[in-house]
Amino acid sequence: MRSDGRQPRDLRPFAVTLHPNKYAEGSVLIEAGDTKVLCTATIDEKVPPFLKGQGKGWITAEYSMLPRATHSRNQREAIKGKLTGRTMEIQRLIGRSLRSVVNLNALGERTITLDCDVLQADGGTRTTSITGAFIALALAIHKLSGNVSFAKYPLTDYLASISVGVIQDQPVVDLNYEEDSRAKVDMNVVMTGARAFVEVQGTGEEAPFTRTELDGMLSLAEEAILQLIQLQKNTLGAAGARIGGVQP
Amino acid sequence: MRSDGRQPRDLRPFAVTLHPNKYAEGSVLIEAGDTKVLCTATIDEKVPPFLKGQGKGWITAEYSMLPRATHSRNQREAIKGKLTGRTMEIQRLIGRSLRSVVNLNALGERTITLDCDVLQADGGTRTTSITGAFIALALAIHKLSGNVSFAKYPLTDYLASISVGVIQDQPVVDLNYEEDSRAKVDMNVVMTGARAFVEVQGTGEEAPFTRTELDGMLSLAEEAILQLIQLQKNTLGAAGARIGGVQP
Amino acid sequence: MRSDGRQPRDLRPFAVTLHPNKYAEGSVLIEAGDTKVLCTATIDEKVPPFLKGQGKGWITAEYSMLPRATHSRNQREAIKGKLTGRTMEIQRLIGRSLRSVVNLNALGERTITLDCDVLQADGGTRTTSITGAFIALALAIHKLSGNVSFAKYPLTDYLASISVGVIQDQPVVDLNYEEDSRAKVDMNVVMTGARAFVEVQGTGEEAPFTRTELDGMLSLAEEAILQLIQLQKNTLGAAGARIGGVQP
Amino acid sequence: MRSDGRQPRDLRPFAVTLHPNKYAEGSVLIEAGDTKVLCTATIDEKVPPFLKGQGKGWITAEYSMLPRATHSRNQREAIKGKLTGRTMEIQRLIGRSLRSVVNLNALGERTITLDCDVLQADGGTRTTSITGAFIALALAIHKLSGNVSFAKYPLTDYLASISVGVIQDQPVVDLNYEEDSRAKVDMNVVMTGARAFVEVQGTGEEAPFTRTELDGMLSLAEEAILQLIQLQKNTLGAAGARIGGVQP
Amino acid sequence: MRSDGRQPRDLRPFAVTLHPNKYAEGSVLIEAGDTKVLCTATIDEKVPPFLKGQGKGWITAEYSMLPRATHSRNQREAIKGKLTGRTMEIQRLIGRSLRSVVNLNALGERTITLDCDVLQADGGTRTTSITGAFIALALAIHKLSGNVSFAKYPLTDYLASISVGVIQDQPVVDLNYEEDSRAKVDMNVVMTGARAFVEVQGTGEEAPFTRTELDGMLSLAEEAILQLIQLQKNTLGAAGARIGGVQP
Amino acid sequence: MRSDGRQPRDLRPFAVTLHPNKYAEGSVLIEAGDTKVLCTATIDEKVPPFLKGQGKGWITAEYSMLPRATHSRNQREAIKGKLTGRTMEIQRLIGRSLRSVVNLNALGERTITLDCDVLQADGGTRTTSITGAFIALALAIHKLSGNVSFAKYPLTDYLASISVGVIQDQPVVDLNYEEDSRAKVDMNVVMTGARAFVEVQGTGEEAPFTRTELDGMLSLAEEAILQLIQLQKNTLGAAGARIGGVQP
Repeated sequence: MRSDGRQPRDLRPFAVTLHPNKYAEGSVLIEAGDTKVLCTATIDEKVPPFLKGQGKGWITAEYSMLPRATHSRNQREAIKGKLTGRTMEIQRLIGRSLRSVVNLNALGERTITLDCDVLQADGGTRTTSITGAFIALALAIHKLSGNVSFAKYPLTDYLASISVGVIQDQPVVDLNYEEDSRAKVDMNVVMTGARAFVEVQGTGEEAPFTRTELDGMLSLAEEAILQLIQLQKNTLGAAGARIGGVQP
Repeated sequence: MRSDGRQPRDLRPFAVTLHPNKYAEGSVLIEAGDTKVLCTATIDEKVPPFLKGQGKGWITAEYSMLPRATHSRNQREAIKGKLTGRTMEIQRLIGRSLRSVVNLNALGERTITLDCDVLQADGGTRTTSITGAFIALALAIHKLSGNVSFAKYPLTDYLASISVGVIQDQPVVDLNYEEDSRAKVDMNVVMTGARAFVEVQGTGEEAPFTRTELDGMLSLAEEAILQLIQLQKNTLGAAGARIGGVQP
Repeated sequence: MRSDGRQPRDLRPFAVTLHPNKYAEGSVLIEAGDTKVLCTATIDEKVPPFLKGQGKGWITAEYSMLPRATHSRNQREAIKGKLTGRTMEIQRLIGRSLRSVVNLNALGERTITLDCDVLQADGGTRTTSITGAFIALALAIHKLSGNVSFAKYPLTDYLASISVGVIQDQPVVDLNYEEDSRAKVDMNVVMTGARAFVEVQGTGEEAPFTRTELDGMLSLAEEAILQLIQLQKNTLGAAGARIGGVQP
Repeated sequence: MRSDGRQPRDLRPFAVTLHPNKYAEGSVLIEAGDTKVLCTATIDEKVPPFLKGQGKGWITAEYSMLPRATHSRNQREAIKGKLTGRTMEIQRLIGRSLRSVVNLNALGERTITLDCDVLQADGGTRTTSITGAFIALALAIHKLSGNVSFAKYPLTDYLASISVGVIQDQPVVDLNYEEDSRAKVDMNVVMTGARAFVEVQGTGEEAPFTRTELDGMLSLAEEAILQLIQLQKNTLGAAGARIGGVQP
Repeated sequence: MRSDGRQPRDLRPFAVTLHPNKYAEGSVLIEAGDTKVLCTATIDEKVPPFLKGQGKGWITAEYSMLPRATHSRNQREAIKGKLTGRTMEIQRLIGRSLRSVVNLNALGERTITLDCDVLQADGGTRTTSITGAFIALALAIHKLSGNVSFAKYPLTDYLASISVGVIQDQPVVDLNYEEDSRAKVDMNVVMTGARAFVEVQGTGEEAPFTRTELDGMLSLAEEAILQLIQLQKNTLGAAGARIGGVQP
Repeated sequence: MRSDGRQPRDLRPFAVTLHPNKYAEGSVLIEAGDTKVLCTATIDEKVPPFLKGQGKGWITAEYSMLPRATHSRNQREAIKGKLTGRTMEIQRLIGRSLRSVVNLNALGERTITLDCDVLQADGGTRTTSITGAFIALALAIHKLSGNVSFAKYPLTDYLASISVGVIQDQPVVDLNYEEDSRAKVDMNVVMTGARAFVEVQGTGEEAPFTRTELDGMLSLAEEAILQLIQLQKNTLGAAGARIGGVQP
């Protein structure tokens, strides 16, 4: 049923390369099959105007695809002169998701910007960006903790994301581009290490879905995200040791 | 627990005024408590370039808030020179939701644009827009069916939407602005008359949510949407008679 | 001669609904026949940069039409990414007109923004906006005078506006859209309660006009504006009592 | 009373230099005192989309000030990325005024664009632009008539424009910048050779004006415009011979 | 070989008119054959944010062509809403070139903006702009030196620019538009009075060029620029006396 | 003298990885020391409007840096809403350079777009982009030649580029970022396999340069470019066999 022979619950091969960028405070190249995303974390010692003077920090994200990341070339948003609705939606999702596991008070008045640039796209670019950006964020906060003594560690939990869908009435996980095109439902799930949902976004534009299908997809997503969080833990090693330390 | 004394499963008073606009092919003023949205449907006898020559139609939506629809005045997007990410997200959601109950082939090469302009906002503007826009769309297609003989009626089902959330660990439905601000989860659900989900969008930025909470919210949403669809049926009367006629 | 049977000097039915918006400091829905404009006044306790520190206030206006306010749908300016010349001209006219009856020194360092949103257009939207915006402004200043003790009341006079034109060599007042399309001259007049002109804008693009025609139009406009100012007085009642109090 | 010793009815010295530009179909440098405007007319053998296939022509205008045309430098609109409301208003006024003396059917399917670039500004730039642009337009149509045989000559009359105002209760004509700043009323008048009004735009932002003041200003404007039209006739000579030939 | 009968090393007639603008701190109209550029220098007593508080000044330039400066009319950049790449390149070049002969520390915390507006273009507009802008800059600094006592004079040398190219295998200088169109190489050179190169920009898009051709062009350019600098000296007279005074 | 111990004539280590992108018609990852650029070539079977119907092709380029390609993060141009002057200059340079070795008539009516995205920047990004883009272009044309039978091969020669500068009076080649910051001259040279210059761009903003220094830099550049062209030949192997075949 799946074009690459996977079982419904099988993830594609995931690969994580640490530190591909020599300047960023945290950086990672994450690959999910042929989807490749370069994630960098930049720490800035100030916050946006709406947070000034409150002692709190901020996490924000930007997302972009290289013009030839896809089958046919897309015009650059810099040339269009504006972001598409899709890009805005995705970068708002990434930022919101990451903030859910950051104690902004503990972070202090600084902003961490996560840049997710898709070098090659084969489905799941937004969920892969979240999973990769979390690692870049963790690296940056770990590095920061070498200079700043945090009473409470700003990262409260692990966080990863995966896509699920329904193909031929069968819920499947981690769809590639070809599967995505023929799935009748498209759902993205973001979850923490404590198995709590941060985002559940399901869309049945082609065909509405039943509550049973929804339940099936959620179960597949949970299982997959726990595997990805295990991968994050293995990759981060000691750099992740203080994540989710006892928080008030 | 609720600021206006409602029970968790209680909707605010909903009111629908038909034909507030003398030019539009379909129009409706929908009120959900103090939230007021003017929805108009415009039929255009052509389709966007990507659909040209395929014999299919298109449904699209635009959403905007008047500058003083809210407590404090917002700058107009026309003056900023661009749409905010929030606006883009909402109008993409409205268009996608409505398309799920339209047979675009049956509609033929024409575009229907739904304009949802929020005159006053008190929470739930996007879900109220969907519920109202569906009625404007149904009125426009009904009017069109007076001139065009549809072999298959283009509207395949009713469709409505509601917001749900969790306040003090209790799932509640149809949050007003004040409730929305203190809810720990914010979820919007779009469902058809056949009880199938079209969109499920839950966000736990403030605090992640459990699967049990998710189930509780979905049940409240289902119940509320069925009430709204009954309201749509009563309001449309004969103009809705052919909706969901047997489709191939 | 007139499509709706009116005499040349007859106004269309005018209706004013106070407080249609629960958040704005002043708001009014004004109807002139089928032309409907929602006007809100927002008070902001600061002034634009060019006035900072001078102890003076500012009055500004914004104007917009909903996309389907007209026979055929207009593209939103927010989507075009810029205001049209027509919109800019109109909102500059509204702001300039209102400022002529405001003592900006008496107002103090605050800005009042008048938003005029045309819900439905059938000719005369700019003049109706001025007449309605004056009422919203008067309500806002009246409300403000409950909190701020004005030595001099900031509103120095009433102000209203009407359109006049020449149809078949006959000057007529308050043209609807159909009349506007076939008039050879199009003139907008703004006048105060003291019968002084604030704006006289006549355009004979289709055919130039004589001084006699100009005189005829001005006389019709004077008469009509005095009726509209009477309507404003009746509507505002006590809220207008201090307008035009003795000023230095 | 006037800073440069003129009587109320005195124009500043006007000078017209023909053909300052070697490429344009018509060009003129017009000077009114220290106000200097370069006007070029460009003929394009096509019309805007809304006129295509109707056999009619179009006249349009663009207006701009060099950044240092004024006392202090203004930012270029090309750098702001958009036209100001003032510029839009002025170029709409110039185009509308010129069209009133052009028989667009006689012109045929071609567009003439008048570019008015203010090299130095000392009051009256918009009225000087109209007076100068008319000459550039007349030169271009005269040149065109060498190649195209017009059954009816497209120019139906002469056209010029002047500013008037009220200073110390005295109507005066052709205000320079210093006078403009202290005038209580600011009015621009456009008139044809047949003494018919094309535009009357009076603004009393600083202080409203009476009907008597309005009459006084209009009389001064008429007298001045007839002098400017005489100047146009002298300047154009034979190139203006067919203007206002008998039209149907 | 040259369309206007010049020898390869011959400049077109150059003419410089001082003070064409009554407001600017320095202004010049420079003509090179039929190329005419109006250059104004504006002094502003502040610097861009990146220089604030360093005691240094800044020199910047803007360049624009009037729409009908050329054979066929170009759309205004203000209407496009953005500068073209060509304009950006040219104004960056002008600014960079002029800064090379300004001691920014000696200038103190002020900005001088050079506006180069091309009234008519016949080849060499960017090099003519540099040569003219230098004179406007020198006039402005000379005027400033009447009010400000400079320990070191901010202008360290003269500076001019010329274009060179290769036509029919022959290096030629100061190409007009017609020559520019058929030259196989296009090179712009900026040089100081001390014969030092500030910019060398050669482009062989049509056909690459040899080192011998490059040497030939550079020699022609040197000779021409020294002539232009002599013209600058003659034109400035006493206003240029302190240029290049002994600098530390 | 050089921060990484190189001799003045030494290039940094260059590495080329072919086919990093599975969708593009040609792609290459090129590394010059720590500068890394991803170049893709996209073939489109149509040409820009200005070339339509002439039987000729077109080559164009776009250039961008990832936000964290540099020491500190740069704002995305897509968010600014426009390209910077620097980006425009660079992408015009890349396109112009590549076109000099393409026979556009031989290519036929198709466009090849070269996207150069800088993943990490350490000096020389524009010259490295040209050298890499040439390889991507060669791969794309080679692939195209499998489907299209070219009478004349569209690539007429090899092409590469390098930067040179003067540090402490010594010409040096291939400057890294640190060297670039302290060089007094900055020059970029583009040359063909036949040792002909395509672009020579030298800038002495900090200090003008002598003709001797210019000569020294050009010699270093020639030597370096010939090495890079040898690298291109080795890398392309058979895919480059037809480059520069006998052309008319």
